[in-house]
Amino acid sequence: MSLLVVGTVAFDAIETPFGKTDKIVGGAASYITLAASYFYNKINLVSVIGDDFPEEFLNTLKKQGANLDGLQIKKGQKSFFWAGKYHNDLNSRDTLDTQLNVLADFDPIVPENAKSPEFLMLGNLVPAVQQKVISQLTKRPKLIVLDTMNFWMDIAMDDLKKTLTMVDVLTINDSEARQLSGEYSLVKAAQKILQMGPKVLVIKKGEHGALLFNNEEVFFAPALPLEEVFDPTGAGDSFAGGFIGYLAKTQDISFENMKRAIIFGSAMASFTVERFGTERLIGLTQEKIDDRVQEFVELVQFQLD
Amino acid sequence: MSLLVVGTVAFDAIETPFGKTDKIVGGAASYITLAASYFYNKINLVSVIGDDFPEEFLNTLKKQGANLDGLQIKKGQKSFFWAGKYHNDLNSRDTLDTQLNVLADFDPIVPENAKSPEFLMLGNLVPAVQQKVISQLTKRPKLIVLDTMNFWMDIAMDDLKKTLTMVDVLTINDSEARQLSGEYSLVKAAQKILQMGPKVLVIKKGEHGALLFNNEEVFFAPALPLEEVFDPTGAGDSFAGGFIGYLAKTQDISFENMKRAIIFGSAMASFTVERFGTERLIGLTQEKIDDRVQEFVELVQFQLD
Repeated sequence: MSLLVVGTVAFDAIETPFGKTDKIVGGAASYITLAASYFYNKINLVSVIGDDFPEEFLNTLKKQGANLDGLQIKKGQKSFFWAGKYHNDLNSRDTLDTQLNVLADFDPIVPENAKSPEFLMLGNLVPAVQQKVISQLTKRPKLIVLDTMNFWMDIAMDDLKKTLTMVDVLTINDSEARQLSGEYSLVKAAQKILQMGPKVLVIKKGEHGALLFNNEEVFFAPALPLEEVFDPTGAGDSFAGGFIGYLAKTQDISFENMKRAIIFGSAMASFTVERFGTERLIGLTQEKIDDRVQEFVELVQFQLD
Repeated sequence: MSLLVVGTVAFDAIETPFGKTDKIVGGAASYITLAASYFYNKINLVSVIGDDFPEEFLNTLKKQGANLDGLQIKKGQKSFFWAGKYHNDLNSRDTLDTQLNVLADFDPIVPENAKSPEFLMLGNLVPAVQQKVISQLTKRPKLIVLDTMNFWMDIAMDDLKKTLTMVDVLTINDSEARQLSGEYSLVKAAQKILQMGPKVLVIKKGEHGALLFNNEEVFFAPALPLEEVFDPTGAGDSFAGGFIGYLAKTQDISFENMKRAIIFGSAMASFTVERFGTERLIGLTQEKIDDRVQEFVELVQFQLD
């Protein structure tokens, strides 16, 4: 019984219309692990950092229940660094700097005690590296969720398509769904993507919510209209973390339960965007999360008669 | 007991990524009247056309229950004409041609028997003309709903702000809400706009659904993810027509009932976008509408436990 999380643990420097940061902790796996840890705490993390990474954040991950045996710390090397600036609408951004550093030759090694996870969350990474993780497992997980992005569609589509045949759930945003399928209609895009491997597709639409598709059904979860969206960085990763954390907790991978998992994922994302980086995901309580989920219920609830 | 609808009855020529039309029937009041007529049939229409307008469409409106005594037909003049081309994402469009024709000096005259409506739907028009309609009424309606657009914010903001003080519900899209309020956050935008006059604000987000705000509550209605969005023209007007038609039918203007009205409005809009112009709004049945509403219920329905 465990959840294996793979992805980057890294530094970001972020500029939004509301402020800017120096180097702060980021990375897909950081957000995923934190968000998932509020639901489930047998988490193994596989990632790579340099020796420049703050011990304090690693201790936070451990306190939240994450086992870091699979986190490689490269002596004398630097952690992955990304700098970006969001446009006024927060829906698009420019990359100002990318320093791969330790990520350039990342060779993921899954520790022995983490090789038979029930749940595997592959955060955004080189598709070939994501495959390498799957190939080290001694047992097929109950559920594999893959997150990816347009960058890999541009430069590694063949690898990505192969990875897609190995997973159960794919999470991407709306423009990525259009790019991957070549279809503008999200319904048609979903139909095509569900023939590429995944049995379930989640299309993330940022402030416009998320769509969940399988071959028969579709479910829509709204995003909360927030008074302050401060920094969208990590929203999609937090969403994925809440989604898989809730599924791991409940051990139920039915479509009905995935609807609930999407609501919990959306709740975690709604916290993340309220502050820079991972700040808001640290020190949350079950009560705060339940209150937030209740806001989603009230937002969409109506009786026809 | 009646619903007064004011707005354009006009010609459009439309180009979308999926096809193009010659001159076809359009205009805000055409869509509003058709959509509302499936819920309520004591409708009085106030508008203006030239003598170039097809008798057949006027007969359709009459058959749907609309009284056309307030529809001025200007001999020897031409109806309002708009030509536009949608971009690939269907969310933005270029105006190719606008011929005001009869609209240039439109002086709305509300017939005696229509001067005390219970419900008034002011479709998108010159704000000063919308005011002229209100000033002719002998009794304050139970509910006045106003639709407007960015064009009037650009050239007639003072008139628009005055009109806003006279209405109960405002329907605009998300970028218009931002323009009117000067706030990017839709929550903050709503707070500001609700101080300008309307007690209720509907923010239409096209394919991303709609938000309903009053001073205490917020409700989100999704848009159906449609396989084919063919032509977005008239979607907002059909939404408004379904919304006010449902309210007029149920005679209930509580926030709870407005939630239902928004679902019915969204259903009517989802039909409109499936074909060019008003085509899809003609010949609908109660059963088809109920089935469509049921799709909305299923799309957002989830149980937390």
